[in-house]
Amino acid sequence: MDINNLAQPCAALNEGARTEALARQGMLTKPPGALGMLESVAVALAAMQGSARPEVARVQISIFAADHGVADEGVSAFPQEVTGEMVKNFALGGAAISVLAKTLAARLEVVNLGVVNDPGEWPDVMRAVIAPMTANFAAEPAMTRIQLASAIRAGSESVLRAKQAGIQLFIGGDMGIANTTSASALACALLQESAQLLAGPGTGLDRAGVAHKAWVIERSLELHGLFPRPAGSEIEGEGALEILRCVGGFEIAALMGAYITAAQQGIPSLVDGFISSVAALFAVRINPQVRDWLLFAHMSAEPGHQRVLAALDAQPLLQLGMRLGEGSGAAVAVPLLRMACALHNGMATFEEAAVSEKI
Amino acid sequence: MDINNLAQPCAALNEGARTEALARQGMLTKPPGALGMLESVAVALAAMQGSARPEVARVQISIFAADHGVADEGVSAFPQEVTGEMVKNFALGGAAISVLAKTLAARLEVVNLGVVNDPGEWPDVMRAVIAPMTANFAAEPAMTRIQLASAIRAGSESVLRAKQAGIQLFIGGDMGIANTTSASALACALLQESAQLLAGPGTGLDRAGVAHKAWVIERSLELHGLFPRPAGSEIEGEGALEILRCVGGFEIAALMGAYITAAQQGIPSLVDGFISSVAALFAVRINPQVRDWLLFAHMSAEPGHQRVLAALDAQPLLQLGMRLGEGSGAAVAVPLLRMACALHNGMATFEEAAVSEKI
Repeated sequence: MDINNLAQPCAALNEGARTEALARQGMLTKPPGALGMLESVAVALAAMQGSARPEVARVQISIFAADHGVADEGVSAFPQEVTGEMVKNFALGGAAISVLAKTLAARLEVVNLGVVNDPGEWPDVMRAVIAPMTANFAAEPAMTRIQLASAIRAGSESVLRAKQAGIQLFIGGDMGIANTTSASALACALLQESAQLLAGPGTGLDRAGVAHKAWVIERSLELHGLFPRPAGSEIEGEGALEILRCVGGFEIAALMGAYITAAQQGIPSLVDGFISSVAALFAVRINPQVRDWLLFAHMSAEPGHQRVLAALDAQPLLQLGMRLGEGSGAAVAVPLLRMACALHNGMATFEEAAVSEKI
Repeated sequence: MDINNLAQPCAALNEGARTEALARQGMLTKPPGALGMLESVAVALAAMQGSARPEVARVQISIFAADHGVADEGVSAFPQEVTGEMVKNFALGGAAISVLAKTLAARLEVVNLGVVNDPGEWPDVMRAVIAPMTANFAAEPAMTRIQLASAIRAGSESVLRAKQAGIQLFIGGDMGIANTTSASALACALLQESAQLLAGPGTGLDRAGVAHKAWVIERSLELHGLFPRPAGSEIEGEGALEILRCVGGFEIAALMGAYITAAQQGIPSLVDGFISSVAALFAVRINPQVRDWLLFAHMSAEPGHQRVLAALDAQPLLQLGMRLGEGSGAAVAVPLLRMACALHNGMATFEEAAVSEKI
């Protein structure tokens, strides 16, 4: 994967549509600003879709599944077989995201990037297997450069497939036992913050488990020379890719590729929780224009998420204490976007309804 | 309205259904607690509906509209004619709540309790007119005892009509120019907090406007002997009704009556914003069991709302900076309840999906 492709310009926002949408919000029969974030979201979608009447009827949810070598360090509350078992559960409709996708009438695709307990062929499961798992980054780099490029490309291709289907919103999801360990290490390296601050319970570690996880992350960052770095050195471009190669995961690299491609193709992405937000942060550090195309669904219960959202200057729509991944938090926020559009498009103006305006 | 009717016992929660629902949440293919508030909401609905598989398909939205004599004091950013104009806008489908009700396939009813600019007969507008508006409580009690009883009864009857239609969730909404002044005065009297703390911009007052509004509230509370009260005197029952009579509004009394009747009839209510939460607080002070039947939709941008929610020990689902009333914040939260139920009812268990459990 050539860094130059990742750095290619993103689609331009439509400022005319934004201005028109903003003006319309001021004319609708409500006090100005009374719909809060539902107003700003409708206006942002108008600018992204180049339409003063935005809509998010057609939604794509792509879940990237992969296993992590660092699971060997005992950093997860669940056994590694769960990743592959959940791929099957996604396909059979039993997982949270399966239920949500059905409720939303969204397209659901699972991309198997390599899981230890490989479930084989299933409907709506794309096979893009790179290796059964990444290498254990507590001992060596998680990926080769070729593996990293393959993972990024798998994310990109998922978006291009979705574009063919005419989708109006992209949601990426993650599945991978031990991936909060990888995401926390990535965030520590990029934000130059300590593992004590960013490591959390993930799927349910106790206090001792979190302490051990933070210790594994610290040791790994030291091994790869990623923390601490010289003060004031901003990490961008190739530097960010190298961090991703050393302590990342296939699914996180794929999510990053997906967000960049979606922005280049002019498709808004609704970012899910901690794992997805770390991928989004890498996407923005590699291609800052990507930020224009991101909406943020929720603040997860994983403690590092708040820092990552702050680094992205992101105000998420929901704070429900969710911490599941799979794209589930983003899926739960979709009705808010749809209602924001319905209100924006369907409410009467003061003039149409003959309602008196502010004194 | 006899205080004894209001104090009649509420329906009992079904603790068996709650226990069963809690157990099911622990078996679904996700880390325990990973769906955050969506789990607790599903369990709460199970206990209310007496079913381990709750649902909120059939939703009633009743908007209570009324004018306020205190509008004469110049406490609102909008002219008083807007209340009646908005009743017509609700009926014609142009208001925010009209659009949301349609999106949710919810039943929408408007109850006209008395507006200055009376729009007359419209489809789905019930006429329960008490007077063109309340008296100006800056000079005299807002209502007579008979008017207060009529308003409470109108709320109660709206719930009883909805019950006939088999609804699973009740949402009350408010429309009334100057009603944040009334709601703030009510909250000040009940919580014994100052008007400076609880008065806010409502539909869009500037700083000077808010200061004037707080001054009007202070003066009114003094006139009616409602603030300050002797320290430590808890206000309940008849005392709360008298506060409501002195500085309340027809729509706020109706909302209170609706919440009490819904709880007595075993129907969950999803409480909207500041006005609705003040009505809910009065309902709970008059009949504490009502609290069991309340879910809270959102934290409004109106500054007093936080205090009122704290007094109710309520954790709302959303914080979107909304401040519209009409039941709009509650309507926006309905898809969260529906998704909570869909997840609860539709996800596979670890056993069904053959997914490994926590180590």
